[in-house]
Amino acid sequence: MSGNGFHGVFPYLVSPVGPDGRVIEGELRRLVDHLIAAGVHGLTPLGSTGEFAYLDAAQKRRVVEVVVEQARGRVPVVAGAAATTTAEAVRQAKEWAAIGADGILAIMEAYFPVPEAGVVSYFQAVADATDLPVVLYTNPNFQRSDLSLSAVEALSRHPRIGYIKDASNNTGRLLSVLIRTGGRMKVFAASAHVPAAVMLIGGVGWMAGPACAVPRESVRLYELCRDGRWPEAMALQQPLWRLNELFAAHSLAACIKGALQLQGFAVGDPLPPQPPLSEAGRAAVQEALDAMRDLAA
Amino acid sequence: MSGNGFHGVFPYLVSPVGPDGRVIEGELRRLVDHLIAAGVHGLTPLGSTGEFAYLDAAQKRRVVEVVVEQARGRVPVVAGAAATTTAEAVRQAKEWAAIGADGILAIMEAYFPVPEAGVVSYFQAVADATDLPVVLYTNPNFQRSDLSLSAVEALSRHPRIGYIKDASNNTGRLLSVLIRTGGRMKVFAASAHVPAAVMLIGGVGWMAGPACAVPRESVRLYELCRDGRWPEAMALQQPLWRLNELFAAHSLAACIKGALQLQGFAVGDPLPPQPPLSEAGRAAVQEALDAMRDLAA
Amino acid sequence: MSGNGFHGVFPYLVSPVGPDGRVIEGELRRLVDHLIAAGVHGLTPLGSTGEFAYLDAAQKRRVVEVVVEQARGRVPVVAGAAATTTAEAVRQAKEWAAIGADGILAIMEAYFPVPEAGVVSYFQAVADATDLPVVLYTNPNFQRSDLSLSAVEALSRHPRIGYIKDASNNTGRLLSVLIRTGGRMKVFAASAHVPAAVMLIGGVGWMAGPACAVPRESVRLYELCRDGRWPEAMALQQPLWRLNELFAAHSLAACIKGALQLQGFAVGDPLPPQPPLSEAGRAAVQEALDAMRDLAA
Amino acid sequence: MSGNGFHGVFPYLVSPVGPDGRVIEGELRRLVDHLIAAGVHGLTPLGSTGEFAYLDAAQKRRVVEVVVEQARGRVPVVAGAAATTTAEAVRQAKEWAAIGADGILAIMEAYFPVPEAGVVSYFQAVADATDLPVVLYTNPNFQRSDLSLSAVEALSRHPRIGYIKDASNNTGRLLSVLIRTGGRMKVFAASAHVPAAVMLIGGVGWMAGPACAVPRESVRLYELCRDGRWPEAMALQQPLWRLNELFAAHSLAACIKGALQLQGFAVGDPLPPQPPLSEAGRAAVQEALDAMRDLAA
Repeated sequence: MSGNGFHGVFPYLVSPVGPDGRVIEGELRRLVDHLIAAGVHGLTPLGSTGEFAYLDAAQKRRVVEVVVEQARGRVPVVAGAAATTTAEAVRQAKEWAAIGADGILAIMEAYFPVPEAGVVSYFQAVADATDLPVVLYTNPNFQRSDLSLSAVEALSRHPRIGYIKDASNNTGRLLSVLIRTGGRMKVFAASAHVPAAVMLIGGVGWMAGPACAVPRESVRLYELCRDGRWPEAMALQQPLWRLNELFAAHSLAACIKGALQLQGFAVGDPLPPQPPLSEAGRAAVQEALDAMRDLAA
Repeated sequence: MSGNGFHGVFPYLVSPVGPDGRVIEGELRRLVDHLIAAGVHGLTPLGSTGEFAYLDAAQKRRVVEVVVEQARGRVPVVAGAAATTTAEAVRQAKEWAAIGADGILAIMEAYFPVPEAGVVSYFQAVADATDLPVVLYTNPNFQRSDLSLSAVEALSRHPRIGYIKDASNNTGRLLSVLIRTGGRMKVFAASAHVPAAVMLIGGVGWMAGPACAVPRESVRLYELCRDGRWPEAMALQQPLWRLNELFAAHSLAACIKGALQLQGFAVGDPLPPQPPLSEAGRAAVQEALDAMRDLAA
Repeated sequence: MSGNGFHGVFPYLVSPVGPDGRVIEGELRRLVDHLIAAGVHGLTPLGSTGEFAYLDAAQKRRVVEVVVEQARGRVPVVAGAAATTTAEAVRQAKEWAAIGADGILAIMEAYFPVPEAGVVSYFQAVADATDLPVVLYTNPNFQRSDLSLSAVEALSRHPRIGYIKDASNNTGRLLSVLIRTGGRMKVFAASAHVPAAVMLIGGVGWMAGPACAVPRESVRLYELCRDGRWPEAMALQQPLWRLNELFAAHSLAACIKGALQLQGFAVGDPLPPQPPLSEAGRAAVQEALDAMRDLAA
Repeated sequence: MSGNGFHGVFPYLVSPVGPDGRVIEGELRRLVDHLIAAGVHGLTPLGSTGEFAYLDAAQKRRVVEVVVEQARGRVPVVAGAAATTTAEAVRQAKEWAAIGADGILAIMEAYFPVPEAGVVSYFQAVADATDLPVVLYTNPNFQRSDLSLSAVEALSRHPRIGYIKDASNNTGRLLSVLIRTGGRMKVFAASAHVPAAVMLIGGVGWMAGPACAVPRESVRLYELCRDGRWPEAMALQQPLWRLNELFAAHSLAACIKGALQLQGFAVGDPLPPQPPLSEAGRAAVQEALDAMRDLAA
């Protein structure tokens, strides 16, 4: 369940961008150090929470550069490559590899529906673009494509596609992926899944925004699951789940940026016209964070 | 996780109906005996797999009568009361209570969307209709209403509403229900969930069609989960999951009726225009059943 | 566009049912006389607005009996036959024919998805059940099945299936039906379409709830369209459209029952748990009716 | 219905891009001349058919430059400004104005859902960015936001927002927009609507991909509608509708690029992973074009 390969807790990093469009590098560096100190197993810039869909090419590049530089090889960096065209996704993957990323989170954006053969060819092209291991990221809620089990199985035969992060809330689908691919495809949970449940059925960890806000507790939960200490894991999972609920109820990037602000990270707000976290959301997040702290005390 | 109250494996019984519209009583009695002998903890006639939406009032009544008679109190019978109008649902609940059912599975059918206050009042009226404990059954795929967490919480305060069976595939929602109701609402998994995962997060069992086809293995899985023997549970869960996948891929009633036919139960086909299980479906089900048998050998 | 065959304005009648579950016959008879006096071309009991999905067998039968009796052949009565099973739909069609209905509005209810071959066989069985002409009624919003253009084309070759009422809001689909069936399938608009637009592209009329509330104006609009007096038609269509908007915004049966109450028909409220028309809805309907009256003055 | 302001047939131009990522300028210029010679009333680069979601900033800029240059003021050019962030949309609008476009087609892309206040602020910022008139473009099928009628009404009060192109297939919604805004918002049909029906209810024309393939016939249809010659209009509308059906059935950009290739324009294929028009699609488009030619002969 661990050892070699990506595993454990990979926070989906926010992308701090100021009103002038510049990446707020200092806070991003502080966040990277903070998360590594908390014991996370890897870092994922340019996931959904990282607002990949809202950043331009220069902003994306700067986010990846800063995270890779600051991580200094202490933990692997799996950077998101997301585009509507194969050419642009390949370009990003090559660029992230050149910068020094350790893996590619491959995301397909779409406007028109694309037949599955096209989706498969897109992900294969990204995997062919570099020598880095690839994590497929599918999110049927926000993306306009989804991968059938047979497509996932086909992609699992590519030598560099070894992971999937599935952001549906359909936990059974993850078990189906594991069975269908004979374990060739390792599974990361997203924030829509109960991490402990995904670990039980054979997952290797999770990639999700809430781990930015509660990294220490997330790592502790991972360790309890990995060690098969399920009653203790569930005792910790219950209060942690509250944050995932909030994350789903409020805008994702807004929620995590707001949670980080409450903890002293000046990461700014989501890029407009996305709204910042509402007052009610801020209060609910604060309450959930306090509940975590009381638990630890 | 067990003891008092409903818990464990409750197969959703098929409703065997012949081409003349008569309930095939002999096979239904055989099936009841077979399932009880296999150790199931209860029986649920008139769930989705029981084609409640396709039976007329006389057929529904006869199914409940036969199951209650044949069970002879050996295990509790939780019978489905499903209607579009409050009046008809109340009528069914009273009738099932008079026949001797031990609990009501409350289902709301709908054609027009109904505001949540109406949905809540419907379920409360069903719970007020008899002295029996009530299991809420929500299925966002096939029903035209769903219950928000706050509605579930409100309903959990009714003295006779103590259970929910949720047939979304959203396992995290079940954990949210448990947390939000402080455990007042006990949770049964449906076939769209991985039963072991639901048991991990605090479920009390499952109500589902596939348990008709593999009752002994289902009971075994329940016991392993109940006893916290998770690695053994997952080793059994994996091959069992194949049947749930088939159940989702093929028409539900058709799939379970077909699986029972393959095991010698002449339960007939689903009521037209629902199609019977296809040849391909039959072969896939046979293969899954064989895999279970090999495992046991 | 007229002449022989069904054509013109067919109000979808409400089903007045009292708190005791009895059909309020007197008001239904008054409504029938009122609509015929207003010039409607036919009557359609047991459509969506007629709450077919909420009535039991006895209530349905009584509604059809009363409407057929009261119409006394002055206008054709096309009665809804709606069920999940083929057997029950056939039973209803035969019963409506025996009572004296002039046509069958064929509706397929569903809980599980049914493959298109099953849907086609269902409608063919209804058409084979009697000698009456059949109107297909498809409503993708509230029914769990839809008919592809090729299925509609296949059904148009049945000697008694000559009409379709499509309650999607996709007006282009109606033109596609007309072209694909070479006019064998005549088209009635539903309340989700702009009637004048459907008349322009070749429709023969409309079957809809709002015509209960504004029959005289509906008939006038039909005549203007039929005569190709399009600018006058659009001048009348604009204020009439307001009622269709309200009908979509509020619960359908509630809206029409409320509009009739405002006009002195004691047709009662929709069957619970459907809510009655809200105060805000009642005010908006009153305003729309007043606007129509001012127009006429 | 005409005179001042945008009106008539505005083809949604394809964006010819070669395998090297360069805009194929010569063919785009030929296409512009061809369409103007056919009598179209305006040109719309960077709509859906123009693959705005698949082009990078440089490709978009070049497309607008070429179209504006080649049009030489003979007809107005309304160029698409589409982004997920307000800042980028404003940047594009300013750039198109500087290049010489005559209007802005404002499109909001989204990944996360954005509350309506955010959507409204986005469109207002685009309208504030330049002095050009703005056409709102909403497409609930491909975009992740939609505008309520009250939002459309609010936006209609902006001095430069005077048009909406709605690509739902809900024709009634267009009538609701016209009524609600008192005509302040003029309506263009999209390819999902029957153009003649939209003209009947008060539209001023259409902006759509198929007009690239059949410009002469589109202009003729517009003139017949404008002159109230409805029977002749419908006689022409019927065969033209076939192309809109194909456009919906096949990938939009692929279908129009394929149709133009069949007419001798070497506009290339859609950007991968979008597939080119299939053989079956090509044959169907050819057949529809032949049917138009036969009609003209």
